[in-house]
Amino acid sequence: MRPVSIHTGAWRYPGAQRDANFNLHALIRYAQTLERGCFDAFFMADHLALLNMPLEALKRSHTVTSFEPLTLLAALSQVTERIGLVATASTSFEEPFHIARRFASLDHLSNGRAGWNVVTTANPDAARNFGLDDHLEHDRRYARAREFHEVVTGLWDSWADDAFVRDPESGLFFDPARLRRLDHQGEFFKVQGPLHIARPPQGWPVIVQAGASEAGRQLAAETAEVIFVAPGTLADGQAFYRDIRQRMALLGRPADHLKILPGVLVVVGDSEAEAKAIRARLDSLVHYESAIASLSVALGVDAKGFDPDRPLPPIPETNDSRSSRQRVLELAEREGLTVRQLAQRVGGYAGLSFVGTAQTIADEMQAWLENEGSDGFNVMFPWLPGGLDAFVDQVVPELQRRGIFRRAYSGTTLREHLGLPWRPNRHFSPAPSANP
Amino acid sequence: MRPVSIHTGAWRYPGAQRDANFNLHALIRYAQTLERGCFDAFFMADHLALLNMPLEALKRSHTVTSFEPLTLLAALSQVTERIGLVATASTSFEEPFHIARRFASLDHLSNGRAGWNVVTTANPDAARNFGLDDHLEHDRRYARAREFHEVVTGLWDSWADDAFVRDPESGLFFDPARLRRLDHQGEFFKVQGPLHIARPPQGWPVIVQAGASEAGRQLAAETAEVIFVAPGTLADGQAFYRDIRQRMALLGRPADHLKILPGVLVVVGDSEAEAKAIRARLDSLVHYESAIASLSVALGVDAKGFDPDRPLPPIPETNDSRSSRQRVLELAEREGLTVRQLAQRVGGYAGLSFVGTAQTIADEMQAWLENEGSDGFNVMFPWLPGGLDAFVDQVVPELQRRGIFRRAYSGTTLREHLGLPWRPNRHFSPAPSANP
Repeated sequence: MRPVSIHTGAWRYPGAQRDANFNLHALIRYAQTLERGCFDAFFMADHLALLNMPLEALKRSHTVTSFEPLTLLAALSQVTERIGLVATASTSFEEPFHIARRFASLDHLSNGRAGWNVVTTANPDAARNFGLDDHLEHDRRYARAREFHEVVTGLWDSWADDAFVRDPESGLFFDPARLRRLDHQGEFFKVQGPLHIARPPQGWPVIVQAGASEAGRQLAAETAEVIFVAPGTLADGQAFYRDIRQRMALLGRPADHLKILPGVLVVVGDSEAEAKAIRARLDSLVHYESAIASLSVALGVDAKGFDPDRPLPPIPETNDSRSSRQRVLELAEREGLTVRQLAQRVGGYAGLSFVGTAQTIADEMQAWLENEGSDGFNVMFPWLPGGLDAFVDQVVPELQRRGIFRRAYSGTTLREHLGLPWRPNRHFSPAPSANP
Repeated sequence: MRPVSIHTGAWRYPGAQRDANFNLHALIRYAQTLERGCFDAFFMADHLALLNMPLEALKRSHTVTSFEPLTLLAALSQVTERIGLVATASTSFEEPFHIARRFASLDHLSNGRAGWNVVTTANPDAARNFGLDDHLEHDRRYARAREFHEVVTGLWDSWADDAFVRDPESGLFFDPARLRRLDHQGEFFKVQGPLHIARPPQGWPVIVQAGASEAGRQLAAETAEVIFVAPGTLADGQAFYRDIRQRMALLGRPADHLKILPGVLVVVGDSEAEAKAIRARLDSLVHYESAIASLSVALGVDAKGFDPDRPLPPIPETNDSRSSRQRVLELAEREGLTVRQLAQRVGGYAGLSFVGTAQTIADEMQAWLENEGSDGFNVMFPWLPGGLDAFVDQVVPELQRRGIFRRAYSGTTLREHLGLPWRPNRHFSPAPSANP
């Protein structure tokens, strides 16, 4: 989620919490509502720059600023008890030592509720905030991400889970035989270690990824435990699901060690007509000048010159994020949209959306879950707090009645919520008895 | 403070909270106790590596690991209401964009209670966690720190305080004329900006520094608002105080825009004899092998070969932290200590210490405050929770009786606690009426 909503028209919606970007009380209320709804995790989208759109469009967007995710989630860890806390961190503009440490710290602070959304950051404006003129080329970003993941998880295994003996009699605080220096030397990183933080309660915080390109899928199949994916249709979702499961089978990874969660904007109404009216109202609140700028970003080209009433012209390859461009091109073709129609959809929210009653939305979710479309969903709300409350108060009970969603948390860690195994240390055994 | 104490024998002290490094409940209790004692701020010391001492000594130390400071302070922001929250971040191994963002975020999350302790990081093991074989030479570190500070504060001034208008009628979320891109290009950094986070409630989080070298003092006189300093005696403290005030006068900075706070380990007893016995007991709990290793770190040379029963031999210059070596050399000479005596003191805690009753400690503090030795103190506790409780329950009331310490917070931000002015934006005026 984003504080005001992922939908760019949401802040103008009647009753919306317009100041939520820096209204911590509102975010606490949202996280607590999600926890009441037994959600696995609270996930906040993130960027490392203003969105790269012209000021004339940007000035109409509530998505420009908010709290930094790791500090926000650390704060939320103290006002929630069970819900997982997933933050984005970039492998292109961070140091693996810092990232390993911060997520380990969040995992300790939250008693095992941390997850790391590993992103490679395609936004060129982000690169320019970190001394570079342009960002790394796509495949280089993923090569760096792979090594980054290796360093971070290696650092998390610095200490055996039982390394700290703290025996005042002998004066031994930790057992040096239960500590391992990393001494990593690779193409992108040289990191001595060890990490100076005890092993996280979950072993490793949960690894989340969202890359949909060839390199992104392969890295996810090898290393991810959750994938956020953005299919346009159930058929798309099924193709992606099959592809990931096949890659995992080739690697010998158990299928249930990775959960595939499509992002879906869920608009709940008392009737289907009311839900559609809410979505239409929201889209109508997106300015055209902001809509066309969003389309330009998604395509990686300047779309302002395109004829608004004709179909999209052919779009050249760029160094920008491939998955977002592909999604938009498919949407335009599938629904036969003009540039204007496409811009309004993309400017609001371009991705998968379930719009209907609690019944029809539960039907759609069930269809995905039962037909290898997904293992769950990365649910987004059209506006807040209303759209969130409607989902928790209406759709969650319907899913519970159907027996396809929990009625209460059975575990305490994010891994337990997701049905993922605790991560044993690769260098020290046995695991302590407290973490079987 | 450190979770278990700055004193390396503290974890073996009877009643000590030995697991405090990862016991958040203990740290919450400490922060709340400090808030009950009306302290300006909670400050957690930090490093970016295991301390660079041999494993044989390190294994006896509780100072090796704890939470990462920014995530910890974000968590503490939700269980405290008034106390300031100061974290260390290094200018040598961080990116200014991330640092500007995180401290701004902490300032928002805490409603204006954040402070940034700017350090240049002298530990060579830290460099080896970030791809370098050795750390930058001293003066280069300070040149980088100066530019880093310029970038971070520039990013904090990205937005006017009233930039976010959020007018649903016109569809204007922010006024683009109230946003300024940084476009910094310097020797060490190229950062486009703007920062994608609203201006911090304090304008800028409070800038704290601790460098005692020529370059460190000059940077502090120019940019710091708090200095943590480690004088061995009141005369040392007065010399430092005068030096900083003179530098500020030359720069035209008002003297009260920078608070000088010596670090002091305070050991409270019901009698002076009891206080001295507590300190002696603590020192006796430091292993000699850990003591001699600490001395080696402080001096930047291997001291294990030195004759333990003779005075310290001459020590060559190194690339390590100058201030800590200088402090130790002065201590050895001032008190005529042997290597063994020096190692035990340095291994426990080498710096300034007030050991006595609430009366005598208040006397010493008052002498510093009234004779231009300091503007306050960075108080450290010999062991926790007992040493902390004794200070808050006995010394704080004595200081209050004397009228030299507050009985309640009069403001809500760290700047207000410290008597520092709110920071106006250098590029946009007027400030909003809420922040005069």
